[in-house]
Amino acid sequence: MRKQISSVQNTYVKELFQIKEKSRIRKKTKTFLIEGLRETSLALKGGYQIQTLLVDLSIIDESTLTALLESTDLNIEVIEITHQVHQKLATRTTTEGILAVAKTKDLVLDTLIFQSENPLILVAEAPEKPGNIGALLRTADAAGIDAVLIANPKTDMYSQNIIRSSVGCLFTTKIATGTTSEIIAFLKTHKINIFGASLTASVEYQTVDYTNPTAIVVGTEATGLTDEWLQNTTSNIIIPMRGAIDSMNVSVSAAIILFEAVRQRQL
Amino acid sequence: MRKQISSVQNTYVKELFQIKEKSRIRKKTKTFLIEGLRETSLALKGGYQIQTLLVDLSIIDESTLTALLESTDLNIEVIEITHQVHQKLATRTTTEGILAVAKTKDLVLDTLIFQSENPLILVAEAPEKPGNIGALLRTADAAGIDAVLIANPKTDMYSQNIIRSSVGCLFTTKIATGTTSEIIAFLKTHKINIFGASLTASVEYQTVDYTNPTAIVVGTEATGLTDEWLQNTTSNIIIPMRGAIDSMNVSVSAAIILFEAVRQRQL
Repeated sequence: MRKQISSVQNTYVKELFQIKEKSRIRKKTKTFLIEGLRETSLALKGGYQIQTLLVDLSIIDESTLTALLESTDLNIEVIEITHQVHQKLATRTTTEGILAVAKTKDLVLDTLIFQSENPLILVAEAPEKPGNIGALLRTADAAGIDAVLIANPKTDMYSQNIIRSSVGCLFTTKIATGTTSEIIAFLKTHKINIFGASLTASVEYQTVDYTNPTAIVVGTEATGLTDEWLQNTTSNIIIPMRGAIDSMNVSVSAAIILFEAVRQRQL
Repeated sequence: MRKQISSVQNTYVKELFQIKEKSRIRKKTKTFLIEGLRETSLALKGGYQIQTLLVDLSIIDESTLTALLESTDLNIEVIEITHQVHQKLATRTTTEGILAVAKTKDLVLDTLIFQSENPLILVAEAPEKPGNIGALLRTADAAGIDAVLIANPKTDMYSQNIIRSSVGCLFTTKIATGTTSEIIAFLKTHKINIFGASLTASVEYQTVDYTNPTAIVVGTEATGLTDEWLQNTTSNIIIPMRGAIDSMNVSVSAAIILFEAVRQRQL
């Protein structure tokens, strides 16, 4: 017999609501909430420890749930929740019918291991908008790169906004965070070439050789990369702007450079 | 002595409010509203007929206004508006202090003239979200391509959302709209190669030659291109997805392919 929760006043529901809403509580409990079937499935694939699934059986069917549980060796508790509880905890309450309670990863540089001896890495300095971070993670997933490093993060990576805008790519890509200084030191220790995207650089991005271990570094759309990055790169690179406007969306810039790197590595 | 409007009940203000809010009224009057200094300046550069500037002198200063008026040969009426009127007509009411009343262009294929004998064109089929259209126009501007064609448009190009999300690139890029059939006929008449982006294509995008007259065609993120496009292309192309996810944001896909085309054309 499965546990069932029907009251939004339930203590566990109240705890989960705090976890959903507050970065501070997520950090303290090392726990976060995942919404949606695809996102949950990708988190399992990405090796996240999922403790509990909350299912709204007015939306999700048993066969879908069974398939999900059979895809993992984890022993996951399943709790049936009412639609009312679902609405309390979820943003999209009509489509998926599933929430997962998962443990956060530490996302520290020390434990980062590359599968490849010739890694391709994206570094984003101080990205602020969750939508931009999500878009960067989607691009990183599509390009199949080895890791995304967030320098001087301004936001908690396990927020609902980032999970949603990344369409689950938060879980499929290796991620680490650190200060700009720490990440520069890490890249230099691992003898990884550093290319900083800058609107004031003179080297066009497509003229650079990305076939060796490579980190591509992008800053914010508003202010670009800090001097600390620009002075510690192998080379600074520019995507020439051929029109009237002098800036691009950061996820578009990152995509153009990363896919050029992938193209070169395929030749 | 400049005309001044201080009442939100003023008939002209009410007319402009309708123009701002309603696509139907914009089409009927062939008039639209531009918000912001950069956007207005780009519209002038793009050859738009601006009839009237509405200025909130609590925000914009006379020297900025004089510089803008001296940048054009048009004889533009300037009306001073109160902050209250400004708030009625604008979305961003604290930064710019300027609105422009401009005539729409017809955006028809017949009158489209390319500067280049070897044009590079982006076609977007039925894009729905104004934010996506704005992002596509930014990418098109940055890549310096010859035109953006919108097939089976679902939305009015002169909406505030598109102007804003394009950061004014709506005005800097040649744009035409038409049905998918009309645009296919246009491209074939002009002997322009057609490359359709599709997740089911077998040809990788970077293996194709874009150095001849080229149109790159993208569909919606949800459903991709229609069969009518896929069956009328020179070749269908794919951006290989190397991760867990099988779709990209349409403006990111377009950017990757367009910048590969630009790269090839530079060699």
